[in-house]
Amino acid sequence: MTEIILPLEQSDLSFTASGGSSVRRSVLPSGVRILSEQVPASQSVSVSFSVAVGSRDETNNHFGSTHFLEHLLFKGTKKRTAMDIAVAFDSVGGSSNASTGKEHTSYYAKVSHRALPIAVEVIADMLTSSLLDETEFENERPVILEELAMNDDDPQDVVHEAFSTAVLGDHPLGRPIGGTIETISAVSRDAVWEHYQKNYRPQDLVVAAAGNVDHQELIQLVEKGLSEAGWDLGLAAKPVPRRLLHPAKINRGTKLAVIHRPISQVNILVGSEGLFVDDPRRYAMGVLNTVLGGGMSSRLFQEIRERRGLAYSVYSFNQGYSDASTFGLYAGCAPAKAEEVTALMIQELEKIAETGITVGELSLAKGNISGSLALKFESNQARMSRLASAEIVAGEFIDLDDTVARFDSVELSEVQQLAQDLLSKNRSIVAVGDVTETMFDKFVN
Amino acid sequence: MTEIILPLEQSDLSFTASGGSSVRRSVLPSGVRILSEQVPASQSVSVSFSVAVGSRDETNNHFGSTHFLEHLLFKGTKKRTAMDIAVAFDSVGGSSNASTGKEHTSYYAKVSHRALPIAVEVIADMLTSSLLDETEFENERPVILEELAMNDDDPQDVVHEAFSTAVLGDHPLGRPIGGTIETISAVSRDAVWEHYQKNYRPQDLVVAAAGNVDHQELIQLVEKGLSEAGWDLGLAAKPVPRRLLHPAKINRGTKLAVIHRPISQVNILVGSEGLFVDDPRRYAMGVLNTVLGGGMSSRLFQEIRERRGLAYSVYSFNQGYSDASTFGLYAGCAPAKAEEVTALMIQELEKIAETGITVGELSLAKGNISGSLALKFESNQARMSRLASAEIVAGEFIDLDDTVARFDSVELSEVQQLAQDLLSKNRSIVAVGDVTETMFDKFVN
Repeated sequence: MTEIILPLEQSDLSFTASGGSSVRRSVLPSGVRILSEQVPASQSVSVSFSVAVGSRDETNNHFGSTHFLEHLLFKGTKKRTAMDIAVAFDSVGGSSNASTGKEHTSYYAKVSHRALPIAVEVIADMLTSSLLDETEFENERPVILEELAMNDDDPQDVVHEAFSTAVLGDHPLGRPIGGTIETISAVSRDAVWEHYQKNYRPQDLVVAAAGNVDHQELIQLVEKGLSEAGWDLGLAAKPVPRRLLHPAKINRGTKLAVIHRPISQVNILVGSEGLFVDDPRRYAMGVLNTVLGGGMSSRLFQEIRERRGLAYSVYSFNQGYSDASTFGLYAGCAPAKAEEVTALMIQELEKIAETGITVGELSLAKGNISGSLALKFESNQARMSRLASAEIVAGEFIDLDDTVARFDSVELSEVQQLAQDLLSKNRSIVAVGDVTETMFDKFVN
Repeated sequence: MTEIILPLEQSDLSFTASGGSSVRRSVLPSGVRILSEQVPASQSVSVSFSVAVGSRDETNNHFGSTHFLEHLLFKGTKKRTAMDIAVAFDSVGGSSNASTGKEHTSYYAKVSHRALPIAVEVIADMLTSSLLDETEFENERPVILEELAMNDDDPQDVVHEAFSTAVLGDHPLGRPIGGTIETISAVSRDAVWEHYQKNYRPQDLVVAAAGNVDHQELIQLVEKGLSEAGWDLGLAAKPVPRRLLHPAKINRGTKLAVIHRPISQVNILVGSEGLFVDDPRRYAMGVLNTVLGGGMSSRLFQEIRERRGLAYSVYSFNQGYSDASTFGLYAGCAPAKAEEVTALMIQELEKIAETGITVGELSLAKGNISGSLALKFESNQARMSRLASAEIVAGEFIDLDDTVARFDSVELSEVQQLAQDLLSKNRSIVAVGDVTETMFDKFVN
């Protein structure tokens, strides 16, 4: 199978994916997009309703309103109280949740096939008919402040948030998803209501389901759910265009940020901009991250943990968005070792830039990635996320065998070149813990 | 199907479990126990090697040595260096890990069926032939200290560890699994070696696998792996008896412990002893925890988060071991709200003790639990863990339909009685955050 392009016109597609599952996609006249993957022998079904709106889309002074809205959709519709919604999800015993990202928001449930109708009905009701009642709004504000406080008490969360801001500066993707104490304390119900009305429309909606699901039945359930809750699906509309995927001009926020906390470890992130979500070099990046900071055999793990015993957790990562990205090296270590560990992390990347990786490492990484991918897609949730992501981010569906083939074609020189490119970018260092800025001065460029 | 008793004599068992999967169990002449569940249409296999030794079994001054040993088994055998072990796991791309609990230790891999032979071979080698090389030992000591430091920087980890100690006092199950900075800094290679030799023998070993696995093939792989690595399986032995399941005398550690940290939230745990792992009331406990502190519709969630906006995370739990247990109510909230939240958590338990739960709540909880269980056992890992736990903890295999039937038979009065029993036990309160002991004085009994 080759890649399948997903057009934004009203259309129907049908093809077979890895493992023999049957993928179907319909763009309805209303602009609602519905994707399903019927997985043989599966009992459960994972279903998500997503819109391509995230924290990056928030206007000034409304930071955190996307996440606030996600909470509020659980707080009652014209037909259902918050308790009704809670009971509906709890009664089926499946997991249900919602997540707000920087570029999209999703509402998700994993249920038995029998419970799919109720799951779709409730999520459709939440998405279309939430009241954003003023009292519920004010009740929820302190809950979100507690969520922010909880995250603020987790130094690994703190270092990752601060790193995005350090690398991406004033780009909207550099902001924390949840907003800040100040913006959440200030945001009004009307601002969130406006955000809701503007971004939750038929042409914004992507429904994706994987597992024991029949496509025609899913379409009927979704149309029924949306219509009964009040959406007019008779109005013709074309799905909103996908977010433009091209580089924004990034002005680095800070070279060095130390957030002082009286804790046991220092959490260090060193890095730069990385690769956008659709960068063709993302396969080389997968190999680089596996060799540099993936599993137990990776260079960072071997050098910093195994040989020197300096850290328990050490890894590298790329976080790609449509027009901005970060690449980072993380370690948690004793404050007295911060300088040594930072030097070693940078050195390991430099070594790859200078002399590349070995044939053995390349081969091991490819085996690791293809094995991991095959196991990953045993999960209906992973297949559901792949559908939603193909629709919202890429505009094409790339199946497992194609993905594996792309990783398999990565050459030694591409990995070395990528390491060189990463080192040539502006560096940011963020540390959270009982350390001082001077420990990192020598690494700032 | 009824419950299947698992005898400790050399024997073979075979039966069909929920979903039509085929379960087989063999006790080999050497005392090694092998359990498998062949799950139809599954591609991957999850496999674990476990021994029923945990932190509770450690002798004085060797606290943390079980967890230390778990780390060391990855550091090299007679045949494999640490890097060889890392490469073997990374090459198959499956997830692999190990976990040390208070009553058992497990080494685990999820791989494709094709990689089962290498996974079994490597884990068998690690378990039987680790060198515990002195240099590797000293390299690993600081890594474990960093792991402890990382946990110490997570206030939710801290409150849970301290709560076990508060409730269980000087009972061995009250100790933290990983030891302390002092014990890890002091423990010798010889002490860990002794621990290893004493507890990793054929009669201690339980191998469990679920997914795409053939029982006879698994037996051959395990026997080959263990023998080639040096175990003599020709020596007849009976499996070690299961841990005795009867109540120990518990002397509460502390009524109230406040661990002062300059963080945003206070993490509160209020509770007492709970139910042992095999307590017949554990089904009523499942219902109680669902109604009191389970999902979005639970009483704690509704009262503390939805109505009053006091917390983001609030729940209840029971942690049962063979002869000791804890039952706790958790909330993370603003320090100024600590008193109010603590009062509300206790009140919600008291309300159930006084007037019970409603018929609607009982029915909702039963639906939630049966739905959750059905979805849970779609995972090969969950099925593997069920096999290992049946063997090590219960001595019997209880299938999904029986488990659901037991939950379904729970009556209103049992839940109310259980809430009364829990309230009659010695209470412990632990708080981690920017609070003082006096805030909790009124709740101490």
